Formats: sequence, C-alpha cells, structure tokens
Amino acid sequence: MPQLADPPDRFAAARVARLATLRPDGTPRLVPITFAVVDGLICSAVDAVKPKRTPWLARLVDIRSDPRVGLVVDEYDEDWTHLWWARVDGRARIESPGSTSAVAALRAKYPGYRDADLDGPMIVVTPQRWTSWSAR
Amino acid sequence: MPQLADPPDRFAAARVARLATLRPDGTPRLVPITFAVVDGLICSAVDAVKPKRTPWLARLVDIRSDPRVGLVVDEYDEDWTHLWWARVDGRARIESPGSTSAVAALRAKYPGYRDADLDGPMIVVTPQRWTSWSAR
Repeated sequence: MPQLADPPDRFAAARVARLATLRPDGTPRLVPITFAVVDGLICSAVDAVKPKRTPWLARLVDIRSDPRVGLVVDEYDEDWTHLWWARVDGRARIESPGSTSAVAALRAKYPGYRDADLDGPMIVVTPQRWTSWSAR
Repeated sequence: MPQLADPPDRFAAARVARLATLRPDGTPRLVPITFAVVDGLICSAVDAVKPKRTPWLARLVDIRSDPRVGLVVDEYDEDWTHLWWARVDGRARIESPGSTSAVAALRAKYPGYRDADLDGPMIVVTPQRWTSWSAR
C-alpha cells in the first residue's frame, strides 16, 4: 500500500481535518475541525464563533469520558492518481484556556481566527500512530 | 445552531465523505471514501484499484464486528461564512458483490469507476440520524 513520505507534514499543512471522538455509547462522533500543529501536538479551538452552545461541546464531553480519538486529512481530485490521505490516532486532552503558542499558531494559520476570541477550551491531541496512503 | 435545510441532499452531492468505523478495541478508524446514495442507502465500494490487500479490508473487519459507523461531508473555505457540514450516524453492512444499482450509481457519479472492477464487497450504510451545521 503506497504511503506518503511525510504524513505529519502533509497533515499539518491541511486547512481542515476530520475528528472522530467516541460518544459515551461508543459510537464515533465525526466533525470537521480547523487545527494547528504545535510541537507535534494537534491543537483545535472549540468554536470561537459560537461558544457556550451545548451541542458544540459534545466533543469535549466525549474526550473527557474517553481520550481516544482519530483524525484524517485528505485530498480529493477527480484524477484519482492525485488522491492521498493521512490519518493519526492519538489521545486527546482539554486545555482551558489553550496555550499561548497554540493560540498564536491558530491565528497565524487562519485569517478567520485573527480577531477571534480564542480563550475557550482547546483540544490537544498527542499523536500515537500515523497511517497514510497515496495513489502515486 | 444553524443547520442545513437538506443534509441528506448535500451529503449525497459531495464527492468524498469520511467514514469512521470502530476497531475491535473500540477506537475510531477514519478513512476518506467515495460513495453513492441509492434509495437512501450510502454505498461505498471497497477499493477497486487495489483489492485484496489486507490493510484495505480493515474497515470490513470492523463493520463485521460492530456495524455502528459515522460519516461526514463538509465544505471548507477561507471565508468561514461558507462553511457547512453534514453528518450521518448509521449501521453498516457488507454486500458482496454490491447491488447492480449501487454499482451503476458509483459508475455514474465517478469517471474513475467507469471502467473499474466493482464486483468486490460493498459497504452499505443505513442512515439512522442526520446532523448538520451551516455558518450561514
């Protein structure tokens, strides 16, 4: 199975990842997230746009109950020779507020965060296993 | 939390979804998939390009052990007012081979499947719960 040469680098450069947490009943909860990688840790702010709305916090409840998460980034193209994905399995924890370096990295990566309130909870994932695939 | 008016339609129109299955140890296994929706069922062929390579079949082993899956499609744009996602939680089963209607739908949706061998296993997901979000 052909793999990427540099899954963590390809992952870090992506604009969006999909996060799977585990609900209390064990089912996977999927949600797209923005993120920045800081010192090898994947950091994602919990919605600065609409904080304190309960449904948004479900992923935090999941992580507090079971820290095992998965994330994937991928590139789709109608020319399937361009397809690739990079996945990471890891452990998540909540930092509230997030570190100043994580906040700075998110602001640097995303214009949408430049003026946003980022003093809420931050999901911080420690990668444990990288998996990747490339069509090339 | 603003939602899409038509999550199943928006989902069906997407070119790629991300599937989460549950590994035997209960962790979520994420992988991007192509798919077609046929009679309300989400159908995904197991890699016609490189069949019979064991790592590709991990999602089938997962589903046989636990049919609970999640899928998400999303649109990313640097203008965050354009963001949306649609998620479905459901139960998956394996059909081998897939139905002729599922094969036809995949071939109609994806040029890459037009001449591909699609007589292998097909993942068929029965949606149980739709969730969506839209920034607008």
